Amino acid sequence: SEIGPDLLRVIERSFSLHRTHSLKDMENIFQLVRNVIPPLTGKRHKGQDGRIGIVGGCQEYTGAPYFAAITALKVGADLSHVFCTKDAATVIKSYSPELIVHPVLDSPNAVHEVEKWLPRLHSVVIGPGLGRDEVLLENTKGIIEKSKVKGIPIIIDADGLWLISQQPSLIQGYQRAILTPNYMEFSRLYEAMLRDPVDSSDHHGCVLRLSQAMGNLTIVQKGERDLISDGEKGK
Amino acid sequence: SEIGPDLLRVIERSFSLHRTHSLKDMENIFQLVRNVIPPLTGKRHKGQDGRIGIVGGCQEYTGAPYFAAITALKVGADLSHVFCTKDAATVIKSYSPELIVHPVLDSPNAVHEVEKWLPRLHSVVIGPGLGRDEVLLENTKGIIEKSKVKGIPIIIDADGLWLISQQPSLIQGYQRAILTPNYMEFSRLYEAMLRDPVDSSDHHGCVLRLSQAMGNLTIVQKGERDLISDGEKGK
Repeated sequence: SEIGPDLLRVIERSFSLHRTHSLKDMENIFQLVRNVIPPLTGKRHKGQDGRIGIVGGCQEYTGAPYFAAITALKVGADLSHVFCTKDAATVIKSYSPELIVHPVLDSPNAVHEVEKWLPRLHSVVIGPGLGRDEVLLENTKGIIEKSKVKGIPIIIDADGLWLISQQPSLIQGYQRAILTPNYMEFSRLYEAMLRDPVDSSDHHGCVLRLSQAMGNLTIVQKGERDLISDGEKGK
Repeated sequence: SEIGPDLLRVIERSFSLHRTHSLKDMENIFQLVRNVIPPLTGKRHKGQDGRIGIVGGCQEYTGAPYFAAITALKVGADLSHVFCTKDAATVIKSYSPELIVHPVLDSPNAVHEVEKWLPRLHSVVIGPGLGRDEVLLENTKGIIEKSKVKGIPIIIDADGLWLISQQPSLIQGYQRAILTPNYMEFSRLYEAMLRDPVDSSDHHGCVLRLSQAMGNLTIVQKGERDLISDGEKGK
């Protein structure tokens, strides 16, 4: 499920403000985490508590998609799929038997191979270990388009953000998207969208403005303090 | 060795009834586990305490056959063999040096390659990570038939159950078979056999009737509470 406005506000309060954490803050954080992690119960069957797809993993990078996929499981999801290149698949599989790894991202019909799994996925994460190979970026573009058609929440990270900075219209206005740039990725995206360098005296404002320029996507700027905005909150 | 009627009764009493476990129950469970796990002794040689074969492991799925094979070892078996596709074999081998992994399930003479190991196996587990590729299902069908001829106990799980729901006669009446469906797999099998949807007010009765329809195979319906029946007990 998506991050609701209340949750967004609690996250903001917990992580964005310039102060040390009181006991009360810590309690709020634990409560927040409880709200996000599904309770362990015998009432539900495998798959109901989250089926996540990661698109990434190529010749150079195999660690990032592994960490994304295994982290989803560690915070309570039931099934993690990784869609990566053939060579990367053997390696990522061998990191953990918990993952389902599909060696399809460099295949001639990559988009179709991923598309057939989309109806079973609750969200997709685009970009960890994706790299910048033209063919892989083109396939990823197709996967984003298919995911949008199905209304699936999309998290875009790493070289997925590089793709977006080249073609922002690919995700612009799709409010079920969350972008998670680090500082460099943020700057690149900000300059591409706003034709201006980042204003280093107003990080909050920049995050807000980028979100607005992208059509109110949720932007999570990762850093010493994460900044989050959906174009309305996060000022 | 097979699950005898006494053991079946103790399992039923321990796990199926809707009550909390007393100290007495726990003692029974420990005793039950002691009966199942072979004692560690220097008197026996490697192989005498269980040689298990797992049939499964394909392009998408490598975790499930690993978990089945390693679990057999952890509860006391001496040797675990996995019969999987060529690509899956390298990955499954890399999960653990304890396993013996045969890259044969997609070879042209898969059935023969597995058959030559059957005389050395005490039981075979069909289905974890098998997937639904036509060729693999056809080979698996051949392996089930050869195992029946040799009277080897067969546990059928996961996509092995999908195969059975397509062709129930493949295992029907073979009383050395144990089927271990989860709720979804159970419903599919029940509808295929009884031409009726599952009666959700009478789970025990449904398990009993499916077992009878299959010719008194043992059915273990996995869930919050496992339900077990051999068509006579388990009402």
